[in-house]
Amino acid sequence: MRYCMTVSYDGTAYKGYQKQPNKKTIQKEIEEVLTKINGDQKVAVHASGRTDAGVHALNQKIHFDLDKSVKIDKLEDSLNKMLPDDIFVKRVERVHANFHARYDVKAKEYIYKINMGEYNPLERNYIYQYNRQLDIVEMERALKYLEGEHNFKSFTKTDEEKDDYVRTIFKATLTRDKYNINQITICLKCSGFLRYMVRNIVGLLIEIGEGKYKSSDIFDILRAEDRTKAGKTAPPNGLYLNDVFY
Amino acid sequence: MRYCMTVSYDGTAYKGYQKQPNKKTIQKEIEEVLTKINGDQKVAVHASGRTDAGVHALNQKIHFDLDKSVKIDKLEDSLNKMLPDDIFVKRVERVHANFHARYDVKAKEYIYKINMGEYNPLERNYIYQYNRQLDIVEMERALKYLEGEHNFKSFTKTDEEKDDYVRTIFKATLTRDKYNINQITICLKCSGFLRYMVRNIVGLLIEIGEGKYKSSDIFDILRAEDRTKAGKTAPPNGLYLNDVFY
Repeated sequence: MRYCMTVSYDGTAYKGYQKQPNKKTIQKEIEEVLTKINGDQKVAVHASGRTDAGVHALNQKIHFDLDKSVKIDKLEDSLNKMLPDDIFVKRVERVHANFHARYDVKAKEYIYKINMGEYNPLERNYIYQYNRQLDIVEMERALKYLEGEHNFKSFTKTDEEKDDYVRTIFKATLTRDKYNINQITICLKCSGFLRYMVRNIVGLLIEIGEGKYKSSDIFDILRAEDRTKAGKTAPPNGLYLNDVFY
Repeated sequence: MRYCMTVSYDGTAYKGYQKQPNKKTIQKEIEEVLTKINGDQKVAVHASGRTDAGVHALNQKIHFDLDKSVKIDKLEDSLNKMLPDDIFVKRVERVHANFHARYDVKAKEYIYKINMGEYNPLERNYIYQYNRQLDIVEMERALKYLEGEHNFKSFTKTDEEKDDYVRTIFKATLTRDKYNINQITICLKCSGFLRYMVRNIVGLLIEIGEGKYKSSDIFDILRAEDRTKAGKTAPPNGLYLNDVFY
């Protein structure tokens, strides 16, 4: 029986989603709990993709198999009782046997939060504390230029070797919080994300907002297919995997 | 020279504001840093009042004396460079020599945040995860009854011996977040708070919202002057010292 769960987590205390020897990771916590629930028979889980250390998720999708059919409500309750309080299973669903949380992804959406106002210690792990003003209009222009199909090699990890760096950005927006004009949220919905792609895009956007680059520099940077042309990498703490589409 | 600073902090990692032997407290962190800045000559600080373990502050007021006059900007910068990232000095002001951050308080305002919706691991230290619906209308009624001058002995710590339990609540409101109808904020502005008073009031309000008490039971509970009549104590994580008035 294959199940898919929707999980939210606070990435602050973890070395990222993906299992690594002797490291505290989201995947390890979830597999350990599922294995216990499964009568100590090992359960392996497959997420829509990894998230880096310090990155959060609001709706991560993770599939796994259990030998026997279980009551969904009971499974959800057991998971949430046994998981640490910074990981929460929002729901579990039965899915067909060939569903795959990673291979079947049609699009993913990330959001990135920035505080341009005064430093707030209560937000430090959840909103990037940039604490200065940015040229929002120029950043919005740059986001528009990013929409569509492009080669995003300039925005991935330097040593990331891939066959294909072409992805389609369906949506690239910037919104101001209605209560707090100093808080902005960048939202990117894409056919798939390369490693560090959101943080590298946001890093460049911030430099565009600072006036170090012009929004129209985006075209040359995309064309260069060269990471060294594309500015800084934004820190992980403002980043959330917001949704996964199948 | 007397100075007063406005400080925000994330209380999650601390055993409260007030110094205690061998415990991590806000006061200890601030006094250590100020003492270093003062050339290792001990500086004692005086806050508007303590906050309990896990309780946050958005505008705590703290006064202290320095032998010599200092540049305010430089002092603010040094403090924020040396303090841990969960404590932030918003500003430092020169005050007259007989100002006292505690004795001169005219009123204080606390807010308490409750999430009635689904558990959110990202909010767990900042918003009480009640995760069920409450009867908001009945809670608002109870808040109205609390306004004015009353004896609040029923709402303080059982073993708290005081000469005077009479305080004046100037404002007692409940607001719903405009974006998230499941998030409510209770705000209490009072001439002074007894120990655990906000958490005990919120604890009772929640039980009123659950239907275990009626809003009009407030009158009997106040009259009883007896802690055992007044319901539960709400957890500290949703509570913020919001402002201090002089």
